[in-house]
Amino acid sequence: MLTTKTAEHIQEQKATSPNTLRVGVIGYGYWGPNLARNISEVNGAELIQVVDQDPKRQTLAKKRFPHIQTASGIESLIHNSKIDAVFITTPISTHYEIAKAALEAGKHVLVAKPLAASSKEADELVRLADKHKRVLMVDHTFIYTRAVQKIKEIVKRGELGDIYYFDSVRVNLGLFQQDLNVVWDLAPHDLSILMYVLEKEPLSLIATGARHSHSQIENMAYISMELARTIMAHLHVNWLAPVKVRLTMICGRKKMLIYDDLEADEKIKVYDRGIEVSKNNKEGLYKTLIEYRTGDMYAPNIEKVEALKLECEHFVECVQEGRRPITDGHTSLKVVRIL
Amino acid sequence: MLTTKTAEHIQEQKATSPNTLRVGVIGYGYWGPNLARNISEVNGAELIQVVDQDPKRQTLAKKRFPHIQTASGIESLIHNSKIDAVFITTPISTHYEIAKAALEAGKHVLVAKPLAASSKEADELVRLADKHKRVLMVDHTFIYTRAVQKIKEIVKRGELGDIYYFDSVRVNLGLFQQDLNVVWDLAPHDLSILMYVLEKEPLSLIATGARHSHSQIENMAYISMELARTIMAHLHVNWLAPVKVRLTMICGRKKMLIYDDLEADEKIKVYDRGIEVSKNNKEGLYKTLIEYRTGDMYAPNIEKVEALKLECEHFVECVQEGRRPITDGHTSLKVVRIL
Amino acid sequence: MLTTKTAEHIQEQKATSPNTLRVGVIGYGYWGPNLARNISEVNGAELIQVVDQDPKRQTLAKKRFPHIQTASGIESLIHNSKIDAVFITTPISTHYEIAKAALEAGKHVLVAKPLAASSKEADELVRLADKHKRVLMVDHTFIYTRAVQKIKEIVKRGELGDIYYFDSVRVNLGLFQQDLNVVWDLAPHDLSILMYVLEKEPLSLIATGARHSHSQIENMAYISMELARTIMAHLHVNWLAPVKVRLTMICGRKKMLIYDDLEADEKIKVYDRGIEVSKNNKEGLYKTLIEYRTGDMYAPNIEKVEALKLECEHFVECVQEGRRPITDGHTSLKVVRIL
Amino acid sequence: MLTTKTAEHIQEQKATSPNTLRVGVIGYGYWGPNLARNISEVNGAELIQVVDQDPKRQTLAKKRFPHIQTASGIESLIHNSKIDAVFITTPISTHYEIAKAALEAGKHVLVAKPLAASSKEADELVRLADKHKRVLMVDHTFIYTRAVQKIKEIVKRGELGDIYYFDSVRVNLGLFQQDLNVVWDLAPHDLSILMYVLEKEPLSLIATGARHSHSQIENMAYISMELARTIMAHLHVNWLAPVKVRLTMICGRKKMLIYDDLEADEKIKVYDRGIEVSKNNKEGLYKTLIEYRTGDMYAPNIEKVEALKLECEHFVECVQEGRRPITDGHTSLKVVRIL
Repeated sequence: MLTTKTAEHIQEQKATSPNTLRVGVIGYGYWGPNLARNISEVNGAELIQVVDQDPKRQTLAKKRFPHIQTASGIESLIHNSKIDAVFITTPISTHYEIAKAALEAGKHVLVAKPLAASSKEADELVRLADKHKRVLMVDHTFIYTRAVQKIKEIVKRGELGDIYYFDSVRVNLGLFQQDLNVVWDLAPHDLSILMYVLEKEPLSLIATGARHSHSQIENMAYISMELARTIMAHLHVNWLAPVKVRLTMICGRKKMLIYDDLEADEKIKVYDRGIEVSKNNKEGLYKTLIEYRTGDMYAPNIEKVEALKLECEHFVECVQEGRRPITDGHTSLKVVRIL
Repeated sequence: MLTTKTAEHIQEQKATSPNTLRVGVIGYGYWGPNLARNISEVNGAELIQVVDQDPKRQTLAKKRFPHIQTASGIESLIHNSKIDAVFITTPISTHYEIAKAALEAGKHVLVAKPLAASSKEADELVRLADKHKRVLMVDHTFIYTRAVQKIKEIVKRGELGDIYYFDSVRVNLGLFQQDLNVVWDLAPHDLSILMYVLEKEPLSLIATGARHSHSQIENMAYISMELARTIMAHLHVNWLAPVKVRLTMICGRKKMLIYDDLEADEKIKVYDRGIEVSKNNKEGLYKTLIEYRTGDMYAPNIEKVEALKLECEHFVECVQEGRRPITDGHTSLKVVRIL
Repeated sequence: MLTTKTAEHIQEQKATSPNTLRVGVIGYGYWGPNLARNISEVNGAELIQVVDQDPKRQTLAKKRFPHIQTASGIESLIHNSKIDAVFITTPISTHYEIAKAALEAGKHVLVAKPLAASSKEADELVRLADKHKRVLMVDHTFIYTRAVQKIKEIVKRGELGDIYYFDSVRVNLGLFQQDLNVVWDLAPHDLSILMYVLEKEPLSLIATGARHSHSQIENMAYISMELARTIMAHLHVNWLAPVKVRLTMICGRKKMLIYDDLEADEKIKVYDRGIEVSKNNKEGLYKTLIEYRTGDMYAPNIEKVEALKLECEHFVECVQEGRRPITDGHTSLKVVRIL
Repeated sequence: MLTTKTAEHIQEQKATSPNTLRVGVIGYGYWGPNLARNISEVNGAELIQVVDQDPKRQTLAKKRFPHIQTASGIESLIHNSKIDAVFITTPISTHYEIAKAALEAGKHVLVAKPLAASSKEADELVRLADKHKRVLMVDHTFIYTRAVQKIKEIVKRGELGDIYYFDSVRVNLGLFQQDLNVVWDLAPHDLSILMYVLEKEPLSLIATGARHSHSQIENMAYISMELARTIMAHLHVNWLAPVKVRLTMICGRKKMLIYDDLEADEKIKVYDRGIEVSKNNKEGLYKTLIEYRTGDMYAPNIEKVEALKLECEHFVECVQEGRRPITDGHTSLKVVRIL
């Protein structure tokens, strides 16, 4: 599990850090500015260059980080010998080409999720990274949140008992990119959380979706999966919902957990509730053989730290120490295969 | 749509009501006491007898309604010439036999949902009621809530525009009867609301469910339906959830509606939100052809009246005026067919 | 603390109960029907008569309880030798006269809160009950809720540490009686909870209120109290609020508790949060001497039982066993004195 | 009322802006980084220098804005001729000295709220700003939120009718500065909102507060104010609450408004609820002369823009166009006087 140094620790470390990781960001649209801001604040890293086709976006980046270089094409960045690592937040269809070029130029790479538009492409990127001994990390930001780390811990120590199901609703109004459907946009979050927390992969899958008359791409989908013979998983992803919901239920034989990412303080609630099979059935008609148990609920305290910052720190550490990231190409490849 | 007299009106009517409908209740377990209490408070009706196999339940009924008769077997009630109507809240497997006997004895009948355990049985009950010219009503209580009536009104006047989808989550911990699975227990609520509000029936259906090791019957299910070519419906019903959720989203081209039955005051929220196709796409990479529109939300005031009381009143009116109930055997037959 | 038999226990007890307490209810307006329904369902008690000036209300009572007597004047009830106890839910200004007559006629008495319109009247009723050796109980219903019982238990075992403050907001739109202001209507709830849970009485009090142009009586008030030298209590009671709020915070040195009576399941939340004085202050300008501690939260499971039923059972037990009620005249007298 | 250009507009304007306002920030603790980030992103402004006594904070600032100067003492900034404006976010006790020096050096000044530690000091700063014809703005950030702007608009157009009361609860766990009590920390927010929205000042005031044994300073307070003869205002500010609450009710004769700043989407709800005096009272005992009216609720859509950015833009405009800020020294002086 991810262990992170305290802010104090990091600040002190900074002064002594010998080699600074020099980073370039490709794509300064919706997510790029967040990556740029976080990596620029991480000790041991420095933001050097931002690339975006749109001059307006370049101006914004320059305004925000007056000391960096900006450019329209990726060439100047890929072949910039002063850059050690490339963060890619361009449309999915371009991930493969850009990541390939960067890896081949010897850069470490962080790619926005999902890794690539097909499992063939994803597979090749994973092999390229291995071949060139470079870090290839995929930006599954949720894995780095304190909440998901806490859920992993609770599940791993068996507090929930045997897992019965994983149910997730991730809906809101609107999308951010035009070259993918809702499943490619939203489902990677839940799939990566699901596989990370339960350490299981889907065996079978049924998906139903809808595109509405105005649109060529699906804007809502329901995905049912079987994880093991007894574990059911279900995702509801939707761009056409009036309100934002990010709600996951993980229910086990012993306890049940609800993760509401929109709650400020009580993101995780663990309910001491479940069922027990009773031996006999004296009461007759109105009692059942199954007993429902209702106990207390508790909400573990979750430290407030920006996940993207922890993720950027993790990237820097993986490069410095030659470690494999939690969300490396291999795990992300599985997500792409499912999609 | 249901129009209901005000409480004042009803009270005055009572004195002048010529023929009182004399009612017997069969089954005094979980739901029977509610039916008994409500029918005993409706003008134009009188509770005469309660039947239950369990002597303890008879004692409870007698304590609560000292003036009524109680019995163990249904015979005394079915052949009681002082009784005009029978309310049946026994396990589903017995609905058919009891309702058949009651209809053939010339009684009007209210049956707990679902009408019967098979569409063959349901079909025969519908025909029997028609043949004997008796009222056969099914207790789809939600249809009589002010909230569902308001939703019907909003959808009918076209406020939401063309409907895109109907999504409902109805989960909680625990079940009330041992002879049916979660779909037969919970889904009739959503199916009856769905068909009543949208005036459409499912064309196709995919369901996935799970029974967990302890149990012989499904305790959770996901049901995807196609209502018309462009309308998708999805139900999540679950007895194994840590918290109670009753949440329905109905989204249309123009507006979107959320119905949260657990909210005290703001059960229905209508969002002036949606999508519009934009004609051109000057902005390039980061803008999409689809525009999302976010406007105000409003929550219509919902009068607080017990739905079961309105339903009992509706039953009495249908008998007195020879009218067909909103939730008659025909509509409930459709629900049973889908199940 | 209140201990209550399980439903099973009570049912069995019923058959063996020797002497049934025969009860009459005076006042069948807003609250009377609730008292009548609950006492009629309690083992060891029987509803005999309902008195109300309004013939319409009598008709409603008769419809609901066909076996009881109804009357307009209290005389027939007070002097009815078949009645052992009187429940009084008339306007406050009449409590004294009616309760006095009932006690002098040898009846046990339950009075709606507050006990009387002045502490002089309340004081005399308390003395009368003592003199005639009759139970005089005041209907502070909240004290009998499982939630308040649980809070009492948590505070009593010292889980919160030394209490710092008690803050309660009890607001909604509308009032139920015309002869009292908002303080007399709503504050008795909080005062009775406050004194029951903390076992302390206010030493000093500042109240500010407002009546708006349309009204002769206060419709909102803020009350600040000092309970002990270090405990502060504050009530906000209001009839002119757009939403209903019933929220109490009890904060102690070790933990903090929130009681939200409108929550279905998680009425009580206990937060392991607080402050600690740190010894030194090395960090300088931006650190303070006081450390804030943020830990987990838990919500104890609260059994769902109607408080009014428990209260009616408690009344019957007190009469049968000659015990003093939790909410006897003495405690209620303190509430009236504060008001 | 504040009118703000759209993001598009601002971006284009940037290229053409002739004179850039050069800004220095004094104090880089909790709030300083937010001010620095926002002013650095505003068109027409540039961040030049950050001053903080703590070398660690200087390092953080330099990491974040590599192109700026940092220093320990304010002298280098105050006498830096390349700086046009100074943002002050130091402890309150130092506001007066620093702001005075800056104004006398011809700088425009933005000061964190409250303006100064006494009304005498505040008064002198206001006079100094007038004398030197410099902008003196106080950072009452809430005034610049879209939510408060919307509330102002709703109240100003008379939608709520005559105002009856303003009730605000602003509680949380923890404080940020050690040299002031909870009233000086939290109440300025509500006082500035209150006076801005209602355009009225308190006529009288009662405050009760508590400091707990560990502490020399008040950590909770209740403040009751009379605004006009019929308008009541009440604030509850508290550093020792288990949860964060920011909830304001503004109730008028016609409608009622709730502002919940912690809601993501529905920050403002307007309830068509109120009271009406009825002419007669035929019903007798259980009806009152006052009728309560319950209608629909609506939640106006609130655009999501960072208030601090709008505030920084407003500061730049006021300097460029010689305008008086919405939250100028005069209004803030009133807040200080009340405190």
